[in-house]
Amino acid sequence: MRSDQRRELAQQLRVDTVRAPAVTGSGHPTSGMSAAELMAVLFDGYLRYDFADADNPRNDHLIFSKGHATPLLYALYKAAGAIDDDELMTYRLRGSRLEGHPTPALPWVDVGTGSLGQGLPLGVGIALAGRKLDRLPYRVWVLCGDSEMAEGSMWEAFERAAFEGLDNLTAIIDVNRLGQRGPTQYEWDTDVYRRRAEAFGWNAVEIDGHDVDAVDGAYAEAVATTGQPTVVIARTVKGKGVSAVENVDGRHGKALDDVEAAITELGGVRDIRVTVSVPEGDDKPHVFETGGGELPTWDVGETAATREAYGAALAALGSIRGDVVALDGEVSNSTKAEEFKDAHPERFFEMYIAEQQMIAAAVGMDVRGWVPFASTFSAFTSRAYDFVRMAAVSRASIRVSGSHAGVEIGQDGPSQMGLEDIAAYRAIHGSTVLYPADANTTAKLVAALADREGISYLRTTRGGTPVIHGADADITIGGSTVVRSSDDDAVTVCAAGITLHEALEAADALADDGIALRVIDCYSVKPLDVATVRAAAEHTEGRVVTVEDHRPEGGLGDAVLDALADTGLPLHARRLAVRTMPGSATPDEQLADAEIDATAIAAAARELAGKA
Amino acid sequence: MRSDQRRELAQQLRVDTVRAPAVTGSGHPTSGMSAAELMAVLFDGYLRYDFADADNPRNDHLIFSKGHATPLLYALYKAAGAIDDDELMTYRLRGSRLEGHPTPALPWVDVGTGSLGQGLPLGVGIALAGRKLDRLPYRVWVLCGDSEMAEGSMWEAFERAAFEGLDNLTAIIDVNRLGQRGPTQYEWDTDVYRRRAEAFGWNAVEIDGHDVDAVDGAYAEAVATTGQPTVVIARTVKGKGVSAVENVDGRHGKALDDVEAAITELGGVRDIRVTVSVPEGDDKPHVFETGGGELPTWDVGETAATREAYGAALAALGSIRGDVVALDGEVSNSTKAEEFKDAHPERFFEMYIAEQQMIAAAVGMDVRGWVPFASTFSAFTSRAYDFVRMAAVSRASIRVSGSHAGVEIGQDGPSQMGLEDIAAYRAIHGSTVLYPADANTTAKLVAALADREGISYLRTTRGGTPVIHGADADITIGGSTVVRSSDDDAVTVCAAGITLHEALEAADALADDGIALRVIDCYSVKPLDVATVRAAAEHTEGRVVTVEDHRPEGGLGDAVLDALADTGLPLHARRLAVRTMPGSATPDEQLADAEIDATAIAAAARELAGKA
Repeated sequence: MRSDQRRELAQQLRVDTVRAPAVTGSGHPTSGMSAAELMAVLFDGYLRYDFADADNPRNDHLIFSKGHATPLLYALYKAAGAIDDDELMTYRLRGSRLEGHPTPALPWVDVGTGSLGQGLPLGVGIALAGRKLDRLPYRVWVLCGDSEMAEGSMWEAFERAAFEGLDNLTAIIDVNRLGQRGPTQYEWDTDVYRRRAEAFGWNAVEIDGHDVDAVDGAYAEAVATTGQPTVVIARTVKGKGVSAVENVDGRHGKALDDVEAAITELGGVRDIRVTVSVPEGDDKPHVFETGGGELPTWDVGETAATREAYGAALAALGSIRGDVVALDGEVSNSTKAEEFKDAHPERFFEMYIAEQQMIAAAVGMDVRGWVPFASTFSAFTSRAYDFVRMAAVSRASIRVSGSHAGVEIGQDGPSQMGLEDIAAYRAIHGSTVLYPADANTTAKLVAALADREGISYLRTTRGGTPVIHGADADITIGGSTVVRSSDDDAVTVCAAGITLHEALEAADALADDGIALRVIDCYSVKPLDVATVRAAAEHTEGRVVTVEDHRPEGGLGDAVLDALADTGLPLHARRLAVRTMPGSATPDEQLADAEIDATAIAAAARELAGKA
Repeated sequence: MRSDQRRELAQQLRVDTVRAPAVTGSGHPTSGMSAAELMAVLFDGYLRYDFADADNPRNDHLIFSKGHATPLLYALYKAAGAIDDDELMTYRLRGSRLEGHPTPALPWVDVGTGSLGQGLPLGVGIALAGRKLDRLPYRVWVLCGDSEMAEGSMWEAFERAAFEGLDNLTAIIDVNRLGQRGPTQYEWDTDVYRRRAEAFGWNAVEIDGHDVDAVDGAYAEAVATTGQPTVVIARTVKGKGVSAVENVDGRHGKALDDVEAAITELGGVRDIRVTVSVPEGDDKPHVFETGGGELPTWDVGETAATREAYGAALAALGSIRGDVVALDGEVSNSTKAEEFKDAHPERFFEMYIAEQQMIAAAVGMDVRGWVPFASTFSAFTSRAYDFVRMAAVSRASIRVSGSHAGVEIGQDGPSQMGLEDIAAYRAIHGSTVLYPADANTTAKLVAALADREGISYLRTTRGGTPVIHGADADITIGGSTVVRSSDDDAVTVCAAGITLHEALEAADALADDGIALRVIDCYSVKPLDVATVRAAAEHTEGRVVTVEDHRPEGGLGDAVLDALADTGLPLHARRLAVRTMPGSATPDEQLADAEIDATAIAAAARELAGKA
């Protein structure tokens, strides 16, 4: 298009950006109006995207990191012919795929955004996939807001992108000066953003974001720049084009009061179509050749840490499947992801100590069909909780391994103990939460996770534990193993991970006193093996001990009670969990002090058995 | 001290940094050895601290953001005479207050660290308190590692500190080149850190961190610099002074193999005492005069959003108490913290969209005895979850208000819905979780929170709801209100927040059919009013419906089941919660689609009543 045509397209985008929020009287028109030229030029001249084939691996990727600007995004889809005006007018209505913030309910949306500061890290993940995995020339374009530049996660993304030399990534900052509740910190001082971006290793271009020729020049420079990502820092006006809201504070997230007047001021409704170029060529994504192999196994009675089993199994899985990739937060020698790194260095991503970027990168790789496993200490998975929450909104399939779970870690103390992780991950929509007690179980779960949809979390233990399940044991997501069972069982004990070993010790101790325990290895905390737990609880007439190296809330104990909630069983449940603030001590001392060791389990079970 | 004496002190610190981890064979000696001169000069020449009076409000604050360097911290305490050598030799033993990572088990430790990237944001909070609240000239010194510079939270801190002109804050980056599993991204390229710090508005000084005179000069410059914070970027050698580990990869977090040889190489055990200067003067912390007043009240039947009640109550509380302060993440017009801001601008802190820094600042203000309330959308409280977890380790008392809870927000969609927040906050050690259903309840809980210890979370609703509890109702943390009750009650309904109103509607509907519901307003989710819930469940013979605008895991339903776990009651519990991935829709449509509305409650209760 000529420049004047692009300006007309931008005006059309503004009109539709005003019209869509009017449907329900909700939405963010002014946040889209500032970026109309930025996106008009992108769609007309730079984006390579086949709207008829969203799965084309050579498609560029466009992410609205400022996810609230959906009216503009959907106006673009209409201009590109992907949706019609009737659908545009379903914006924010029940059942419409045109939601208030973008989600993959739409085929052209890769990731859910709307929690600010996430779109750019997600874009880094896709750009990493493009460069290191797919090895295709697609570009990633991310429209950012100026308010979200305050999020630390943006600077994690700036760092990662520059360090990796991602010249296939372009960030566009729509510096419209006004945040939700007033001016941003730096308003139109775009030089602040430029200095920071350059200090982080980016090529930076400052422009007037309403000058279509300047926008064109900036994108041309971005495409021509090699070896480093480019950020286009665009000075814009919020609500541009409608005097009632233009650069007016207090108009964030509000439909316009007089829509008709705004449309008139913008020159009326138009029906301009923009032809978005489709990607050229027919290059296929790179395929990693693999040598094949078998999952590792351990003999019953051997000692191995489940984190070691994680590393060994992941490395083996990488030899079996070329689509498996691994990321780690600079602790791969602890999580044991280093085994994968050593075996498959091309598919390993060192994310340094930036857990938010790590999860975002995993989501970005999943967008492109890779099968990411990301790892750090279980305690530090909490750093990225909002990213995990949003990964579920993104319909992503990612696998997170949290090592060093619970008080079992010993001397390092509470800052390093994951004690809230099961609760956090259980609450994620559609999630899977696994906590294996031995090496063979871990290896089988790692393999099963490769085909698991949604957000998965695998919790591993620091110290070595005896292998109790044979290499041929039936281990499945949603399953469990009844490790001790007899017709005389008086009490059911539900345990997982480290506490399973304590439960077995307790069962041995009580057996000497003639009290039989049914011990269930609940390695699949979510989904829980409800049938097995219910059958056991029925057999032991509601006498159940749950024991976990986790806080009492939201963990295994809650999952077990949920399974029994509507059984009509008279409940006599004792819930052993970490109710203190630990300090430093040996692992055994920690388990004892938290009263989740064999002694505590035996005492609780003995007391319940007395109720028989 | 003379320079040579400082060098000797540094060597002593190294010797003790080697000796302490030898006690249990665990710890991080090499990470302390790199910073020995940095800390020797600080203690000898710059720190103002009365070890005999940790509560002296004029004391400086020293934070080890690289919390794993505890051997050095405790060696410093010994050199300063705060602990003796016998206690040093209890490092990491059960019951010792010398834990693996610093916690306020020690009186001189303000905050727990060990999750990297948190010490500097916490220091920003204390420095803000010093400048804006206490108005005392104490300084805040933060020792940072180079690895943790990858955490986005560090850049949130850099931004906040510069924007606020915190010249009372000095960051010291111990650039020892080696992280846990290998070289850092930039190794000894200290210029990278300088450029970034300067771009973020800091004064930056690059030095050789083992040159005591250079260190002295850098600190002198920091103290003399006004209007901006200073970062000392110190090139150092990990494991400095012991050839077996000096600048050797793979020695992170490991006790030395040959401790005696290391001590010999370091020149042997010394017993140098350093006299840390005590702060001068007797200035007292600033006290904010208040006009007094009353908490707001609403008439039964009025409509008000609980978020509005939060804002109004917080503003009133600020008029009653001068120690109450508020922070918000650039959404104060939504959370309604703006009411406090308007009433008490000197005690309001705009943290922009940087939730991690917001929570860290609240913790920092609590360190100095202020009573912080921090607010953002409930969904975005998840962004700071690791900071909340660590706030509990810090023994902090902070209050977080999360607005826009659940699907009730309507059209904005899932990215903006807090649906995991109750689970996340319940799992925090010693936490309080509140979810009021009306304005009067909210106001009373806000007031109660001011005196509440530990981590508190108050969940508020976007839309207006009718006031159902009178201004004289008995509302307490740990309490509940039985809103409907009769001898004929067939089913107990436990609800909170928005679902309480749906439960009342369901009760009305079923009353017409002769089915009586006992409806409990469980506004205190943790601690739950166990006695009331149990009594009701007993009365209704185990027939209980729980209903919440939250995921099924870890929320009110789990809390209620926990209360009934060991009652022996035959359980017939139905748990209504959000089990779908919502899109956009009106609030009423959302509640219906999630099956947590009056219709769903009535159906569940009716079915349970059939079991009577």
